[in-house]
Amino acid sequence: MSDTYPISRRNNVVRRPQRGHYDKTTVHAILDAALLAHIAYVIDGQPLCTPTGFWREGERLFWHGSSASRMIRFQKPGVPVCVTVTHLDALVLARSGFHHSVNYRSVMAFGTARLLEGDEAKRRAMDGFVDRFYPGRSKLLRVPNAQEFKATTFVSMEIEQASAKIRETHVGDEEEDYALPIWAARFPVHQVIGAAEPCPRQHPDAVIPPEMRPYQAGKRLDEVLTETYRANYPSDG
Amino acid sequence: MSDTYPISRRNNVVRRPQRGHYDKTTVHAILDAALLAHIAYVIDGQPLCTPTGFWREGERLFWHGSSASRMIRFQKPGVPVCVTVTHLDALVLARSGFHHSVNYRSVMAFGTARLLEGDEAKRRAMDGFVDRFYPGRSKLLRVPNAQEFKATTFVSMEIEQASAKIRETHVGDEEEDYALPIWAARFPVHQVIGAAEPCPRQHPDAVIPPEMRPYQAGKRLDEVLTETYRANYPSDG
Repeated sequence: MSDTYPISRRNNVVRRPQRGHYDKTTVHAILDAALLAHIAYVIDGQPLCTPTGFWREGERLFWHGSSASRMIRFQKPGVPVCVTVTHLDALVLARSGFHHSVNYRSVMAFGTARLLEGDEAKRRAMDGFVDRFYPGRSKLLRVPNAQEFKATTFVSMEIEQASAKIRETHVGDEEEDYALPIWAARFPVHQVIGAAEPCPRQHPDAVIPPEMRPYQAGKRLDEVLTETYRANYPSDG
Repeated sequence: MSDTYPISRRNNVVRRPQRGHYDKTTVHAILDAALLAHIAYVIDGQPLCTPTGFWREGERLFWHGSSASRMIRFQKPGVPVCVTVTHLDALVLARSGFHHSVNYRSVMAFGTARLLEGDEAKRRAMDGFVDRFYPGRSKLLRVPNAQEFKATTFVSMEIEQASAKIRETHVGDEEEDYALPIWAARFPVHQVIGAAEPCPRQHPDAVIPPEMRPYQAGKRLDEVLTETYRANYPSDG
């Protein structure tokens, strides 16, 4: 298996190519630190972009059947999609408007989305969706009933091509502009989780499972998600 | 001017319609609390989804010319796009896999993207992009040179239709499941800014401008951006 994704016009980073990465390790790390993806697809020539919870298993991405599933259902060969994940890491204020920027890590992954078929595959995905974020949690839950099983659809996509784009530097000004007395700085930005707010109707015997350990108040969500990903897929990466 | 966006198949919230909103106040508030949008467009049948800094002026959205500008340049009548903005607000752990969820505020805005033409409009957008996030900052900066002016393109889109989708409740379980001793909770998630990291080559006379006051370490980015939006567009909303 190749360590990098094939490059073509579709995934080539044209604007600021020095920020582009095509190796699977970099792409996977960005995907596995995220919960939400934005998924672009086309209905009757109209592009649509829907935010969706997703996860990765090897080279396959999975997400919950969204409004797209209505369309995909009738297109057995699948539909082309672009799955984009973005982490905003900093605001960068330079000495010229031109060099104002943000630090970020993003991935665009391309492939063909298909409905996940077969009861066993669907059952695995229902548990997989929970366990990827909360390792071991699916076995603690009330099992899905027939109606829920029927109402749930998953879409999956093999990653055919992908690219990552990363900016992680500081202010980058024109050499002569550093002599100007203009305040320039970087503001870090992080997504953090707060303290657990228990369900107001919590059962008195309910205790927080040890698998929730990564979810500590004040921690960065991307770090929590990377940790839970590795706990759930110990053999991956 | 109508207070709500017209509803059609394109922007109608079909899945969980109780979470849908079509009034401009709700849509604008979600847009104005964000810096990044994910923009979906189509090239040769292939959907693409690019993360981009954007801002709103009235019913018009602006963003930096990205890879899409190559395509848009050759399509004078404009191209259909979907601009999506998402704030993740909480993780929701229920007593069944089916009711696991996240709290979020999202907007999908539809319209026709066109390159911003005309030197004056472009100059206004270059300043506008800086001032929307850092009110008053454009007048403190080194002015754009001819090469930067030429290298910069903006895309703009009038919002033809939009919808917001919001989940902001707690755990929502099946009535009989509340009797189960399964730990259920909500974890708030916020994007927060850290302390300013001054440019390592800061000029000794450079001082932090008073307009940066909203950017306090530990503050929520969505609240900072809402504050700076109102400071920059005092007559809007």
